Amino acid sequence: MPSLSSGEFSLVYNAFSFTFAAMFATFIFLVMSRNNIVPKYRGAIVLSALVVAIAGYHYLRIFESWQAAFVPTESAEGVLTYVATGAPFNDAYRYIDWLLTVPLLVAELVAVMALAPGKKGWLTFRLGLAAALMVILGYPGEIATDTGTRALWGFLSTIPFLYILYELFVGLAPAIRSEKGQAQVLLRNIRLLLLATWGFYPIVYLIPILSGSGALTAGVLIAVQVGYCIADVAAKCGYGLMIYAIARAKSESEPQVTAPLAAAAR
Amino acid sequence: MPSLSSGEFSLVYNAFSFTFAAMFATFIFLVMSRNNIVPKYRGAIVLSALVVAIAGYHYLRIFESWQAAFVPTESAEGVLTYVATGAPFNDAYRYIDWLLTVPLLVAELVAVMALAPGKKGWLTFRLGLAAALMVILGYPGEIATDTGTRALWGFLSTIPFLYILYELFVGLAPAIRSEKGQAQVLLRNIRLLLLATWGFYPIVYLIPILSGSGALTAGVLIAVQVGYCIADVAAKCGYGLMIYAIARAKSESEPQVTAPLAAAAR
Repeated sequence: MPSLSSGEFSLVYNAFSFTFAAMFATFIFLVMSRNNIVPKYRGAIVLSALVVAIAGYHYLRIFESWQAAFVPTESAEGVLTYVATGAPFNDAYRYIDWLLTVPLLVAELVAVMALAPGKKGWLTFRLGLAAALMVILGYPGEIATDTGTRALWGFLSTIPFLYILYELFVGLAPAIRSEKGQAQVLLRNIRLLLLATWGFYPIVYLIPILSGSGALTAGVLIAVQVGYCIADVAAKCGYGLMIYAIARAKSESEPQVTAPLAAAAR
Repeated sequence: MPSLSSGEFSLVYNAFSFTFAAMFATFIFLVMSRNNIVPKYRGAIVLSALVVAIAGYHYLRIFESWQAAFVPTESAEGVLTYVATGAPFNDAYRYIDWLLTVPLLVAELVAVMALAPGKKGWLTFRLGLAAALMVILGYPGEIATDTGTRALWGFLSTIPFLYILYELFVGLAPAIRSEKGQAQVLLRNIRLLLLATWGFYPIVYLIPILSGSGALTAGVLIAVQVGYCIADVAAKCGYGLMIYAIARAKSESEPQVTAPLAAAAR
């Protein structure tokens, strides 16, 4: 691990703190607001709440690991520097988090759509499996120290990602066209949000390769960590709130469904 | 960081503890009382609860950072003094907190008002963006060591603040006039509370300039930290409780709306 200036250490530290705060705030919002949603789509809100709760927990762990990996040391010139303690910064937390949350993210999207129950289960299984494969295949590259290995596993991980995009933009296209009004617009937009945020991860993943040398410089370390924070906030909090907006729009446009189901759920 | 006497260290320490307690107590109150509010205005209560939850979390972090920044040391004369450990006191937490909570505070106010849904979204967006800009522009001045830089960014940060005041006191005036009875009185008052509490932050911000020298003396450090605590309790707990009072007054004066919506949400 490279040594960091006080400002560099704090930037990553504050990015982790911000991400944790965003996750638990979204969790509180979803838990407090789930009753605004008709029971038919409430499952999607529960999944969204799970995602941000799991991610919030892992960010606490990442936060602690970051603190344990560095110790503030005053140099001979009196400048405060954060020097590696030797305790490894545990990046695996992020992959464990993704292994749990990424399949849930695709399940959220299926849960908020108006599909036949049988179709929903099988689609969730296929997309969830692809999402898990994507994360698992990315990991060996993340911990690799040479750029060749990183590129190879990154490439393999891209295959299930492309399958997910195929299902979302081709397979689900007729179902999205059959949705009404605001819900249809939001469903189109959430696919784009998913593409934009999930597309951000490969870019962060490639930073060590793009930076030229395989060495972990302070700049690369900071860019990767802050980059993943931004991607996680958008892909989990932003995405979860959009799932809520879709469920809310559908709750308002399908009032006839509300009454009997609400009565059943009471 | 200057050295502090035992009393000075404890004063700030206790102010942080008090602020954390006030935040989580308000959070519990809002969560436990939200069902007293008709569903139409319940979103405002959820936002109020989010604000105090996020602020409570950041005060815990600020608290920890304050403890880590000083170590109690007995001087040669046997007087207990708190000496800087070298670990920086992380003021950035406060700005991260504000970045999340200040846009939510303006969103609370819009959510509790009787505006057309389309108008609400656009107004929330404009006010939220101005609030975020206000916080972002203030930060470079807060961490600056010279008073000129502090004054410059403070000035820039004031521009979005004035825009928010314009929207609240001019733009929203007709909508507030159309509110009924107690709700109208409370809405007028909450604007004044917002003006008074948000107006307090620039004063705290200016303390290092007003104190003459750019040096961070113990007096300036304490005044800024305790000042921000007072402002945060008033602007988040006090403000959130007032939002609750407005929503409560409107829940009682709009009973015709209550019944069907409450039944649907049950």
